[in-house]
Amino acid sequence: MDRFDALLPRPVSVRPKPGSLRITHDFSLKIEGEPGERLSKAALRFQKRLADKTGLFLEAGEPGQCALVLQCERVGELVLGEDERYSLDVTPTQAVLRATTDIGVLRGLETLLQLISADQEGYIIPCVEIDDEPRFPWRGLMIDSARRFQPLDVLKRNLDGMAAVKLNVFHWHLTDDQGFRVESNEFPLLHELGSNGEYYTKEQIRDIVAYAHDRGIRVIPEFDLPGHAASWVIGYPELASAPGPHVRHIDIGVLDQVLNPIKESTYGFLERFFAEMITLFPDEYVHIGGDENNGKQWLANPEIVQFMREHDFETILDMQSYFTERVLGILTRLGKKMIGWDEILTPNLPATAVIQSWRGRESLVEGARAGHKIILSNGYYIDLCQPAEYHYLNDPLPSDMELTPQESTNILGGEATMWSEVVSPETIDSRIWPRTAAIAERLWSRREDCRSEDLYERLDVISLHLEELGLTHEKNYPQMLRRLARGRKISPLQTLLDVCEPVQGYERVIQRKYTVLSPLTRAVDAARPDARGAREFRNLVRHYQGEVATGSRLKERLRIWAQNHEALAPIIEHSPVLQEITDLSRSLSTIATLALECLESPGRSLNEHEKTALAEAKEPRGQLQLVVVSAIEDLLTKER
Amino acid sequence: MDRFDALLPRPVSVRPKPGSLRITHDFSLKIEGEPGERLSKAALRFQKRLADKTGLFLEAGEPGQCALVLQCERVGELVLGEDERYSLDVTPTQAVLRATTDIGVLRGLETLLQLISADQEGYIIPCVEIDDEPRFPWRGLMIDSARRFQPLDVLKRNLDGMAAVKLNVFHWHLTDDQGFRVESNEFPLLHELGSNGEYYTKEQIRDIVAYAHDRGIRVIPEFDLPGHAASWVIGYPELASAPGPHVRHIDIGVLDQVLNPIKESTYGFLERFFAEMITLFPDEYVHIGGDENNGKQWLANPEIVQFMREHDFETILDMQSYFTERVLGILTRLGKKMIGWDEILTPNLPATAVIQSWRGRESLVEGARAGHKIILSNGYYIDLCQPAEYHYLNDPLPSDMELTPQESTNILGGEATMWSEVVSPETIDSRIWPRTAAIAERLWSRREDCRSEDLYERLDVISLHLEELGLTHEKNYPQMLRRLARGRKISPLQTLLDVCEPVQGYERVIQRKYTVLSPLTRAVDAARPDARGAREFRNLVRHYQGEVATGSRLKERLRIWAQNHEALAPIIEHSPVLQEITDLSRSLSTIATLALECLESPGRSLNEHEKTALAEAKEPRGQLQLVVVSAIEDLLTKER
Repeated sequence: MDRFDALLPRPVSVRPKPGSLRITHDFSLKIEGEPGERLSKAALRFQKRLADKTGLFLEAGEPGQCALVLQCERVGELVLGEDERYSLDVTPTQAVLRATTDIGVLRGLETLLQLISADQEGYIIPCVEIDDEPRFPWRGLMIDSARRFQPLDVLKRNLDGMAAVKLNVFHWHLTDDQGFRVESNEFPLLHELGSNGEYYTKEQIRDIVAYAHDRGIRVIPEFDLPGHAASWVIGYPELASAPGPHVRHIDIGVLDQVLNPIKESTYGFLERFFAEMITLFPDEYVHIGGDENNGKQWLANPEIVQFMREHDFETILDMQSYFTERVLGILTRLGKKMIGWDEILTPNLPATAVIQSWRGRESLVEGARAGHKIILSNGYYIDLCQPAEYHYLNDPLPSDMELTPQESTNILGGEATMWSEVVSPETIDSRIWPRTAAIAERLWSRREDCRSEDLYERLDVISLHLEELGLTHEKNYPQMLRRLARGRKISPLQTLLDVCEPVQGYERVIQRKYTVLSPLTRAVDAARPDARGAREFRNLVRHYQGEVATGSRLKERLRIWAQNHEALAPIIEHSPVLQEITDLSRSLSTIATLALECLESPGRSLNEHEKTALAEAKEPRGQLQLVVVSAIEDLLTKER
Repeated sequence: MDRFDALLPRPVSVRPKPGSLRITHDFSLKIEGEPGERLSKAALRFQKRLADKTGLFLEAGEPGQCALVLQCERVGELVLGEDERYSLDVTPTQAVLRATTDIGVLRGLETLLQLISADQEGYIIPCVEIDDEPRFPWRGLMIDSARRFQPLDVLKRNLDGMAAVKLNVFHWHLTDDQGFRVESNEFPLLHELGSNGEYYTKEQIRDIVAYAHDRGIRVIPEFDLPGHAASWVIGYPELASAPGPHVRHIDIGVLDQVLNPIKESTYGFLERFFAEMITLFPDEYVHIGGDENNGKQWLANPEIVQFMREHDFETILDMQSYFTERVLGILTRLGKKMIGWDEILTPNLPATAVIQSWRGRESLVEGARAGHKIILSNGYYIDLCQPAEYHYLNDPLPSDMELTPQESTNILGGEATMWSEVVSPETIDSRIWPRTAAIAERLWSRREDCRSEDLYERLDVISLHLEELGLTHEKNYPQMLRRLARGRKISPLQTLLDVCEPVQGYERVIQRKYTVLSPLTRAVDAARPDARGAREFRNLVRHYQGEVATGSRLKERLRIWAQNHEALAPIIEHSPVLQEITDLSRSLSTIATLALECLESPGRSLNEHEKTALAEAKEPRGQLQLVVVSAIEDLLTKER
């Protein structure tokens, strides 16, 4: 795959030209225009990444002989809709990267790094003219630091990954039932009693905000209210809608705890709280959550019921709408705009509030028609371990969407959401990457450029590129296999897990009770969405038309699987945590053996016992799904 | 290798008993005695590591049914010589871990985690009685954060690694010519102009000190004076011995810059500086460096020469001795003890100062006789990429050392030193681990228990155990190969680098000019000391007595190497950074082919051309050394 095809996200326009610009040890750059400190820092990072990729000991070349010129007119502002356009002109003597803002230049530098190639003489950048700009202005990744705390290095490397694929909003889910993760001086019991001691100090918050700022990424903090607030009321029970005792919750799941919406003191508290928090977060938006309030505690509280009656609130949503408007009032007084999950979308919600659509696309259409700005997250829930292609096909604004052009402009973009019920710092990158790169392309590139036929091949390329930024989605896989194999050879385990995926959707947490302390070191945690071995096998089967070479490769694969259980069984015996995948391992060998037999005897039909074996092979075991069974069935159908 | 043999460092006494204690999901622990917060936190970490190792969803069991009881009499103090003894008694119903201090319990918990085993029913701890205590009270690792800044996560995972092998001193080299890495409010130009913006804030320093404290590890800061101080004088030129201009230095190597020892203002500055720093570092010791002052700037400064004359200072050392005594005075007034590199050892140095011996063992003997406390680092320079066994055999107090018993007690222990001229956050772990575990055993275990015959096998076991703490010495190797191979299959590159090591000693920085910005992503950076493939081949050759099976394995190895260049050449062509190892790769294939030919034709002798090929194969290329050549020669000798 050539460098232009591999570019991800695909630029608006790519015009290759003959020749290439050579990268040598005196490759140097200069900045023209009004760059500001952010671009100077970005240029240093670019040089380091260039040196790391090439092993070149870069030295300043002759003045006036700069190979790369960065030009921008002004320092960009980190606000919604800021100009991120850039154009890149690479000739054999020089690359010129032009943009209105330094943020545009940052986007272009990422494209440039993806273009680095090699010929027999050394490293080059192929000559090309590129013009590029984003389709949507809001392209985000949400990380849930509340349920499972995510250390700073996890966030930083993911911010680097975001910048590499031109995402521009880091939505930071900072509070939830299971943990309150921001230091507050106004209300110190929030983080002291609302967490297990794992929270971000103000200095650390500023560090992350600055780190994101340097990469042209906005940071939107989320303080989830009025539900998901069990961690708030431990230290401040006066906020609660129900009597205590209020304790820390470690179970996964939605709790009943909800703030008391009828006490004036609640709003006084929140006004002081938000006034403190906005000193940390310069972005114009603050996310107030608003999701999944089941209302049980409100209906069980006679005073709240009485208040609802007095105000003619018929439903929980009416009561919450009142709460939301009060909070909106606070944020407005503080000079901030509000964003919330789609539950906040009620008829009397002022149009200034932004809606994040998570439950379905209905709220997207409804909200856009009502004049709200909307971002899409439904279909981008990367915690659910669905395939990259599924997310990729999810267009926030498909061509058949029934909106007027004016209404369409209300669709701002989307956000991938990394909820942390069952991810640890060790596994989180493998749940975010490379699938989030597919979402990033969907949000940046033009609709017609989002073609899924070579998506996975391109994700393989960007995946290695992302690894260079410190992301651990590749390297932690064998690490986890080493732990599981307890010193034995990992290859049989890898052969199995290369064709297994974690169960998709909410099955993982429905099938088994998890707490935020449950170990995430099992086979299901090591396995990854879009299992590579299964994908390769499916591709072979899909294109197989009886060719001898492909047939041999398929049989070779099947033979390895057929023998794998024999190799894996002693490892499982040596490592009790693997016992839950014994049947899965046996299944793979059984169906591979069966498939080989069928391939050897064309026309042979399956008996009932064998059909059962194939059906059983599809059942999840150890919360893992064998994802080659259908492809094997297809193969048998083709051969018959 | 059974669990008891694998324990590292080896305990003083291990008495296995029949039976085992079963670890199930209700495995719980209780703490008795006067534990304090440190032990409570350590118990939580223990439970998390136990759960991660076993995949068990631990739940509190029946009260009174605790499988693990931790007992200690008092909270230990983080001071030299604190009691670290523990005893462990594992029976089929309970494990009891007793110690005088909580620090002793921490040491015992690490032993316990290494004991976790499995049988067909699940996880177990084999029954045993262990009594253990350290041989030396000072067991350290120095990390140089000055030349190449090391982020907090690097330090934290290495502190975890240190605790796992019972090291108890983190010596933090915080300032050097190339960088000043601590925030100072008294003298902010130190970190602002003396670094590239990469320094530790006070909050971060406190975070690291607390992290170490929680693991029973002392933190000794080093502020290197009066030499190695080029980064100090950029912001405060009044400290300099020579006129400016004073600028940041990025070149590797020892510079001339040295503080001015004759100005009273220098000592006033240092007194204020140390008074500020000791608020961050609670340990009773402060390291003042003192090494490698070449004295050139002193001798070039007429006022200093005049001062020396007036004070009858004949040598640079006399002048430095004066400086050292003044600094000692400051530290004494501040209630701190001084430690320095062996250059500070002069006849009039007060006996309270501790000497760190780096240039040779002479200073160890000399210092101990003069009544100084001494720690050994000579022979523990892990940056020089020497074999683990070399460091392991380096006993601070060998049986033939000519010291009286009283003088022997002056030998406090030793420290591994990780200088950072040519390590990055990506490679540093592979230079520290697992070799530092060998040094840790040397410093903890009794002399007679340090037997090198199974050292490497035991390091393989501890290496996986260390990886579970987040250390990257294993997983960053294939990551670096992936970057080098630019998307191609890494196995041919790995086959080569598995039998290559970085050149040892100072050759690396002598052969080529490095700055602190040079990329550390080349083949030499990916390769590791104690190359595993070479070690395995050498072992096979060593024990080979003509057995057919071993002969076949050796030939199989040689055949893979013989064919490897053909597989690697196209990857090298595709990745210019690898061109420097082309000849190395060709050499491996050439000598493997030659060896195969010789093995096929017993009695065949080598011609001159072939002898030259073998000799050439020993030459470093790309700063890498092929470390199987001698073993191949041995094999040919055996076969002939």
